[in-house]
Order: sequence, then C-alpha cells, then structure tokens
Amino acid sequence: MPDEITLETLKRLGSATIHEAQGRRGAMDSGIKPIDPKMRLAGRAFTVDSEPADNLMLHYALTRMAAGDIMVVDAKGFMESGIWGDVMTAGALAIGAGGLVVDGSVRDVQSMIDSGFPVFARGISIKGSGKRQVGKVQTPVMCGGTLVRPGDIVVGDRDGLVVIDPHELDQVLQLSQTREEGEAKLRLRLAAGESTYGIMKLERFLPEG
Amino acid sequence: MPDEITLETLKRLGSATIHEAQGRRGAMDSGIKPIDPKMRLAGRAFTVDSEPADNLMLHYALTRMAAGDIMVVDAKGFMESGIWGDVMTAGALAIGAGGLVVDGSVRDVQSMIDSGFPVFARGISIKGSGKRQVGKVQTPVMCGGTLVRPGDIVVGDRDGLVVIDPHELDQVLQLSQTREEGEAKLRLRLAAGESTYGIMKLERFLPEG
Amino acid sequence: MPDEITLETLKRLGSATIHEAQGRRGAMDSGIKPIDPKMRLAGRAFTVDSEPADNLMLHYALTRMAAGDIMVVDAKGFMESGIWGDVMTAGALAIGAGGLVVDGSVRDVQSMIDSGFPVFARGISIKGSGKRQVGKVQTPVMCGGTLVRPGDIVVGDRDGLVVIDPHELDQVLQLSQTREEGEAKLRLRLAAGESTYGIMKLERFLPEG
Amino acid sequence: MPDEITLETLKRLGSATIHEAQGRRGAMDSGIKPIDPKMRLAGRAFTVDSEPADNLMLHYALTRMAAGDIMVVDAKGFMESGIWGDVMTAGALAIGAGGLVVDGSVRDVQSMIDSGFPVFARGISIKGSGKRQVGKVQTPVMCGGTLVRPGDIVVGDRDGLVVIDPHELDQVLQLSQTREEGEAKLRLRLAAGESTYGIMKLERFLPEG
Amino acid sequence: MPDEITLETLKRLGSATIHEAQGRRGAMDSGIKPIDPKMRLAGRAFTVDSEPADNLMLHYALTRMAAGDIMVVDAKGFMESGIWGDVMTAGALAIGAGGLVVDGSVRDVQSMIDSGFPVFARGISIKGSGKRQVGKVQTPVMCGGTLVRPGDIVVGDRDGLVVIDPHELDQVLQLSQTREEGEAKLRLRLAAGESTYGIMKLERFLPEG
Amino acid sequence: MPDEITLETLKRLGSATIHEAQGRRGAMDSGIKPIDPKMRLAGRAFTVDSEPADNLMLHYALTRMAAGDIMVVDAKGFMESGIWGDVMTAGALAIGAGGLVVDGSVRDVQSMIDSGFPVFARGISIKGSGKRQVGKVQTPVMCGGTLVRPGDIVVGDRDGLVVIDPHELDQVLQLSQTREEGEAKLRLRLAAGESTYGIMKLERFLPEG
Repeated sequence: MPDEITLETLKRLGSATIHEAQGRRGAMDSGIKPIDPKMRLAGRAFTVDSEPADNLMLHYALTRMAAGDIMVVDAKGFMESGIWGDVMTAGALAIGAGGLVVDGSVRDVQSMIDSGFPVFARGISIKGSGKRQVGKVQTPVMCGGTLVRPGDIVVGDRDGLVVIDPHELDQVLQLSQTREEGEAKLRLRLAAGESTYGIMKLERFLPEG
Repeated sequence: MPDEITLETLKRLGSATIHEAQGRRGAMDSGIKPIDPKMRLAGRAFTVDSEPADNLMLHYALTRMAAGDIMVVDAKGFMESGIWGDVMTAGALAIGAGGLVVDGSVRDVQSMIDSGFPVFARGISIKGSGKRQVGKVQTPVMCGGTLVRPGDIVVGDRDGLVVIDPHELDQVLQLSQTREEGEAKLRLRLAAGESTYGIMKLERFLPEG
Repeated sequence: MPDEITLETLKRLGSATIHEAQGRRGAMDSGIKPIDPKMRLAGRAFTVDSEPADNLMLHYALTRMAAGDIMVVDAKGFMESGIWGDVMTAGALAIGAGGLVVDGSVRDVQSMIDSGFPVFARGISIKGSGKRQVGKVQTPVMCGGTLVRPGDIVVGDRDGLVVIDPHELDQVLQLSQTREEGEAKLRLRLAAGESTYGIMKLERFLPEG
Repeated sequence: MPDEITLETLKRLGSATIHEAQGRRGAMDSGIKPIDPKMRLAGRAFTVDSEPADNLMLHYALTRMAAGDIMVVDAKGFMESGIWGDVMTAGALAIGAGGLVVDGSVRDVQSMIDSGFPVFARGISIKGSGKRQVGKVQTPVMCGGTLVRPGDIVVGDRDGLVVIDPHELDQVLQLSQTREEGEAKLRLRLAAGESTYGIMKLERFLPEG
Repeated sequence: MPDEITLETLKRLGSATIHEAQGRRGAMDSGIKPIDPKMRLAGRAFTVDSEPADNLMLHYALTRMAAGDIMVVDAKGFMESGIWGDVMTAGALAIGAGGLVVDGSVRDVQSMIDSGFPVFARGISIKGSGKRQVGKVQTPVMCGGTLVRPGDIVVGDRDGLVVIDPHELDQVLQLSQTREEGEAKLRLRLAAGESTYGIMKLERFLPEG
Repeated sequence: MPDEITLETLKRLGSATIHEAQGRRGAMDSGIKPIDPKMRLAGRAFTVDSEPADNLMLHYALTRMAAGDIMVVDAKGFMESGIWGDVMTAGALAIGAGGLVVDGSVRDVQSMIDSGFPVFARGISIKGSGKRQVGKVQTPVMCGGTLVRPGDIVVGDRDGLVVIDPHELDQVLQLSQTREEGEAKLRLRLAAGESTYGIMKLERFLPEG
C-alpha cells in the first residue's frame, strides 16, 4: 500500500495526467464517474467479481479488506440495481476503507456524499439486490473495460479512473511529474504567444494546411 | 391525498427505503432523475399518456389537476423534445401542483430550479413540441418502466422514484420506519466492529468462502 | 462577429427561446451539454472536422481562430477520448477564444471550470488522442445532429445548444424578444387564474376531452 | 387457453394488426425480437419474474407450465447473460410449451432455430447464469416495457410482440379481422389510383400543406 | 432523375465505394439498414420532415412524389413507432415510388419484403402513429446524421446509405469506377503475394514498426 | 497453433459450451457478432491495438500474420467507421488468414460473405478510415470487454465469441466434451419426463416454491 503522501500526490496529479504518463494504459471507460464531482480517490484495489443485482460478495469483501483499500467491483455493468448503499458505506467507514468503484449502480447517494466516502459508479438505482450469487474476491476483474488486479493502484476524480501497476508506481509518479512540469512550461509559452501547433511542430502531419 | 406530514415523512424516508420496504415494487428505472439533485417530491399521481414531442395533453392536465398533485407523464421515453418549460411551470405553480415526472425531456431548466418546482425527467432538450396529438389523462400509464395508476403516491429524490399503492400507504410507512430503525441498529453494530456479512449470517450462501 | 451586447442578449435569451423563435431549427441534440451547468456561451463558430481520438485539427484551428470565436468540433461523437484538456484551454484563453463545443469528449474538467472557459461536450474521458489524422477547418460540419457552417452564431446554456444563421440574426433577436414578452404576459394571465390550455384554445385539438 | 384455430388466426393476423385493433395497447418495445425472423408465436402467458443472470425461476416454471403456455420472463433487460439454451429448450419441448419471450438474452441459438421452438429475446449471449436468486412465477411482470399478467395471450412475429387481455380476445379478433378487411378495401382503392391521404381526408389536419 | 442504367450502376457500385469516391461525404450513420439484407436502392430523394410517432406528412408526400422517387424521412430517430406499413407500401407501389429511407421505425416487415419494395429503417415497431402533427416536405432534412436535400441521389445496400449531390453525379460515377478498377488491380497484386501495406507504402507512417 | 481437427472440434462444440466448460471466462460481450449467422471461426489470435477510424495497424498486421491466424482488433468500439473491407479480405485470404474479430465496424459485407471469410464485428459502416495513427500488434488487447493475448485461441459462432488460454486448451476440450455428454444424458431424462429443476435438485434454493 502506498503511503499517504504518495496517495495525495496521485490525487493531485489526477487520473488524466497519470493515464498519459503511463503510456495511455489502465483507463476505465467514461461511463463510471464519481457520484459527486468533488470526490477524489486513490488507493490499493481490493477486487470483487459479482453477479448483477447481487451484493453477497461485496458484504464478504468488507470482512477481508484492509484500511485504505478501494473496493473495485465488476457488477457486469448492470445499472438497474443499487448494490451499495448507506449501511454498507457505514461498514466501509468502520474498517477505514478508502473508497468504492463499481461497474454498476449504487443508492443512498446523498447520505454517501455527506459521509465523505468516495464512490464511483456507472449509475444510481433505488432497486435492491440479492445476497445469493457466488462470485470471487481478489481475482483479476474487468471494471470499466479495463483489467484490475488485486493490489493495483486506483486513482479517480471527476475526469474518470485509472489503474496503475504497483511495480510501475515510482516510474509513473516520476513521469507524471515530468509531464506536469512540461505542461507548466507549455503554458508559459502559450501565454507568450506561441501555439501548441507550433511548439509541437504539428505542421509535419498536415502537409496541405 | 396524504396529508402534509405524511408527504414530508415520505420525502425524508426516501425512495430507496420505501422501495425496499414495500417488497421491491414500484421503482422507476434509473434514467429518470431530478433536474437538480437537491429536489425531493411526494404526492398523488395525476397521470398523462402523451405522444412523443407533443404536449397537448399536459396543457389539458393542468386544467384538471388538484393542488398537490404530481403530473406523471408517459412521453414514450423520447428525449429530443422538451415538452415542459418555464411557462408550464408557472401554470403548475399557479394551481399548486406538487411536481412533475416525465418519461421524456424538459427545458428551461435553470428557471425551473430557481422556482423550486420539483421536476424529474429522462433528459433535457431545447427542442419544442406540437400540441396536436390526442392522448389520455387519469389512465394507468407506464413511466420509467413501471405502472402508475391515477391516485398512486409518487416519491422522488436524487436516488430515483418509487410509486406506492395508496391502499398500502400506511403499511409502507410503517415498514419503512421499521427498516430505518433496523438500519440505525445495524450502524451501531458496524461501528462496534461487526460486519454486515456476520450480522446477516451470509456465510450460509458462500460455502467455500 | 456580433458585438458584445448582442452576445450577452443571446446568452440571456437562452438556447430554448432562440430555437423556438427561429422556427425550431438549429438545435443540437440533447447529448451535448456544458461541463458545468452554470456555463453560458455565445459567439461565432469556427468549425473543425476531425477524426475520433485525434486532435491534430484542433491544434491547427487554434492558430487560425479570431478572438471570440467558438470552436465547434465534429469529433464523430466518439466518447472514449478526451480530445481537449487544460493545456489547450490555456492556448484558447491566450488567443481570446470564446468557447468550445465538441461532439465528443474532453478531460481536465475541474481545471477548465476553474478557468471560466465555457466547454460543451458529449462526454468526459481521461483517454488521450493522436495528432496524426488530417481533417478540415472552416468547412460545414455536423455537430450534435445539426449542420454548423463557419460563421454561424452558436448559443449554449444548460438546456443545450442552438445555431443561428448570421443573416437571420437580427430577425431572430427580434422574434426571441417578442416571444419573451409574450411569455411574460402569459405568466400574468396564469397567475390570474387562466390556463395555457384555455389561452391557446387547445380544446379545438381535443374533441372528446 | 384459446383453441388451436384461434391461435393460428392470431399468428396470421400478426402483432401489428392486433395492436392497432385493440386500441394500441399491449405492445412490447422494439428491442425484443424473434431469434429467427420466420418465427411466429401465439399462446397463453406463464409469467416469470427473475433476477438478471439467474435462471432458477425459469427451471421452476418448466415444472408448472401447461402444454401450449408461453413462458414470459422479466429478466430485467440484462443482455450479458444467456439465461436459456438448448437443454432448457429440450425441457420445454418435452412438456409441449408454446414458446419463450425473455426481456434478456438467450444462447444456443442455432440449435433452438433447428428445433422450431419459437424464442423471442432482447439479445444473444454465451455467458451463463446462476441458479440461486429467488423470484416469482405467475405474477404480473413487466416485459418489454408492458405489463403481462398470467393468462394473457401473447402474439409475436418479426414485427414484435403484443399482449391481449383474454377477456377481450373475442372482441380483438373481430376488430382485427374488420381492420384486415378495411385494409384490403384500401388496397383496392390505392391500386385504382386513390391515395391514403385523400381516402382518410387528411387535408383537414394540414391547412397550409 | 438519373436514368435506369445509371441507377443500376449506382446499385452495383454500392454505398461504400461511392462514399469513398466522393471524398467520404454523405454517409448516413450505421443504425439505418435495409429490413432485408438483399435490398438495394437508388433514386432521387423526396424529403419529409415529420414529428416522431406521426405519419401525416408521409401520407401527404405520397400524393406529391414522382415515379422512382425515394421517400427520405426524418422521423427524429424515434424507434418506438412504426410509421410505415403494408398499406402505405401498397400506396407507394401504386405510384411507382423507388423506396423508403426512414430515421425511425416501420412495421409489417414480412409483407414489405415479399412486395420487393426497398425499405431502410432504424428499427421495427408494431406501435402505430398519429396523423396530426404538421411537418414539411421537399425541404432539407437530417436523416441518419447527414443532410439530405430534395433531389439528392440516395444509394443504399446492406452496408448502409450514401447521399450524392446530383451536380456531382457524373464525377462520382467516374471516380467510383476508377476506384473499382484500382481495387481490381490491387486484388491481382495481393493474389501475387504483395501486401496492401507494401503497395500503399504505409511504412512511412509507422517509423518504429 | 492447434491442428485442423482440434479447430473443427472447437467450432462444433461452440462458443457457449466452451465458455461454460472453462468456468465462464473469456466471453466477449453480446455486441460482437458474425456478419452472417452461418459463420464459424476458430484459430489463434493475432492481436491489434488500433485507434478508432484508422486501419494502419491492420494493414501492418497482414504482413506479420501466419496462415490460420485470426486477427483480433481493439478498434475502441467505434461503430461509425468500416475499418475492414473487401480488399483487405482479399489480402487476408491470400495469406491464408483464419478470420477477423473487430471491436468496431466493417464494410463490403456482401462480398465478404460471398468469399467465405469469417468476420465478426460490432457494426457495419460505409465510412472509411485513416491510415495514420500508430498502434500496436501482438500485445494484450481488450476486445468485446475481455482480454485477448497473442496466441490465445478464439472460437466464434452466431452465439458469440470466447477466448481460450492455449495452456488450458486440452483441459477445455475435455471439459467441453464432458459437458456435451452430460447434456446429452440430460436430454434423455427430459424426454423421459424429468425436469431440469428436479434433476439439478434446485428446490434447495427455493424454500417457499
């Protein structure tokens, strides 16, 4: 698990910068977003493979997660069942979980926003879920169209979500910061009257203008 | 029509709790949401069956609704026509209507939010509508994938919308409050270190863990 | 390019009123919305025809646009690539651009909102884009399902976006204001107890009521 | 259960004619279609309310259905699980079931087409399903956006599906046949050079045409 | 109106080749397809701007179309209303119409296929339509996301639909035939062991292989 | 590369059976289907990661593939560009390629069907593509929501597509055949009057029937 400073750095860098820095890998699709645009999230993925409209495995996961872990749930993209609500949020807060990412829907949204617990989902549905279908935890899962492995680092904000291989974390941090510095310089040159088109010499791709 | 205290209680309980309490019936689908997340709505349904992109029947309904009524419109899910706007909102406020639920789109959203009139819709479209196609009022309609009968009680918030059979209202209120109390106790036990998995004895569904 | 007062008037009138006033033409579809509901935009269209997931032509356009111009991009509706971000926003602000409308996705949303630059898009994606595919600028493009010609006037707010033929601008302004005045009178009559149904004599379309 | 001749008549009349004849009620939405365009189906609905990606209740239903019954399943519109396949088709054929309508997906399509058993579904998915989640049989269900009650008559063909209240069956048959005869006469007049526009006197709706 | 040989040539060349030949303009989106994959269509567009779920203007159009004309209808993409069926097909055949393209749905599909009348639509729905909402004929319309003007030439097959400006028809025919000849030569070289990658010298775009 | 007999066995077993046999892993989503329902495909994946609306990498791949290889392309799910057509099919046939799976669209469908080359795609579009954007070949790609690695075995039919890890191929074949034999026995018992519900003892999941 990365330390607190690293997680804060990841949140500040943001999902888009990290995604670029690591060579455009690990992005979830644009349909999964925070339930409140101010929410930010960074932490280690605890993965859950569940059936649609059934949250048995999510309850189980809460008994296995460590503080700071982000529960990442493949709920098969089904949007008409809110498989997570305020009681589960209370359970997650009680164990110090770091957040939730679900390829599916949640409910009790106002209460979750008030609690400060970061939740990213594809939809919001009042419909409940069963507690009967067997799934898996801590197995590689698909979430938002990308592969998430147990222990991967997940970073999210209102732009979206990105997954980092923990073995590449140091490199990704460095590349992200380099990218940020490059962009800061770029902004100065833009303010001074240059264009991105000129700076990047894009005319070579556009022979006929 | 339920009295004001009952309506406020329904709003406070919220759509998700009521939906669970009444046995997971009456939920609209997740695509219909308030145009502002702070909006809450509770009241008796005045149903309208209209054609897409035509609001003749909505104008007619405004001459028949009683104070507090919620207009519930099956506009066939068509999202590219805003069949309700600020003038109709003014008309609705003038007769004391309680809100609008439309399986379709609305427009003049900022003005409606400023007015405080609660509006739930599938989309927002600037495109207008005709006033020619004959429909029906106060007939059972489909809205958000569920059946709504004239006189049903509709409750909505940022989680979504639920429909209550008025003959079951007292029972639903009681079950919802029981559910709320149960959840309050659950939260105490979670804070004390228990898990939902343990409390609900979910291991019986998960033989191999 | 319309003067500043005209642009402010267009913003105040709003996209829905203008769309009605000009005979229900020029509306973009309901899927393109401001990235922040408070954003408003009015200005002359600088059109860009780009390939999905490639922003070469957008960089080029920034070297050709005049102050106040709105970049209107047909990115083919592809939502899984953020073809515009904070650096390009800095470039756009440096040249005094008036805003962005893109039939596709953007990223770095928080930073763009903070900058005050109005951006309308179909989605938000952290995924980047190439800079290789040749397109066109200042050519008629499809955006949000409507045709936009270079020099057309674009007006947007949280309801949506509308395109005005510059040759009809004076007439559209006048018709929009007439419409606004008519609606003001209508509101007075509604407050006095009349109904839109009665005022518009809609019973003629509803023989059997 | 209607007799065989009535069922054949319903198939011949077709879903569109019946839907019109009974006042445009009871149509399922356009997303549910036969897995082979030549399939036709008519019979009494045996309703099943199941969870997505779980076919426990469908297996149960097969032990309760009578010969000729059509299983009508609300599988919540979930398309990424084939909840019916060739073995269940064999089971259905063994009891003389009349067909399947599922608001969800099926698999083993080629084998089902070869068997001649009529199947209408929203999608086709190779992904399997659980057998754990409790649902209901012979209860009113939503399927394709319309309400289906146990005992309703379902008619389907490549145009789509329509549900008939059995108490209205005689009347619907008569009205459908009247409609067919009317259309036959209409065709003669069209062949003789008249137009539908003239025959139906539609110019009254088009003052300025 | 192009002569019969030209129309047959256009059908043979096909929509994809023509679209490429005319510089990738005029393609409808991929959602509009023939109701039977064997259908082919070529002719002059008679345009109709209608409201969703209302076919008044289509009936009117049938009184104005010339033999060979293709009715091209902007029905606003609404899929839950079959605005064209077998009776209207009989009317269209009686006047020698060349086909139908509708951005919306149709019904009575089997009968239309049997009749040989080419129909391209976005969906198939048994639900009927009104005959009340005023629209326009022979005006520029949006259909399948592209602009169609009265008199444009429309060509369709199972790949999709393309619209040709009649003033460019000769040039488009020539370019299409040149393209066909080029492809024939390409096929010979491929059969002889060359690759498209080599023939088109694509390595220049792929520096690092 | 599996031998011809193994490939034929895989085709006969079919995608649904294989998916079940290998523990419900490796299924592509239901949106990717053969362009003709009779097509079947089995072979070793040659993976391509391309940008939407650009087929540079597909041309490159054709110079690297071995006979029998199936090209599996992540074209980012973009449906409005046909990135493969008849000329590329000729190229693929010339090198003995085994088929194409593309998370995107193709064109020249009739000609491809006539050629017998198996093609699975998400859509059909006449719109062309660029040849400029750099991607990758023989790298793990996402296709239809599942991970495909170079050398994986892909099996497809009208039910859909499944991906097999080559190290598990023998086991999967055995399990699939066991499953087939089990189903054959099941069919005998069903024909003899038993039910799947009884045979699988499903009453244990349904306490209240």
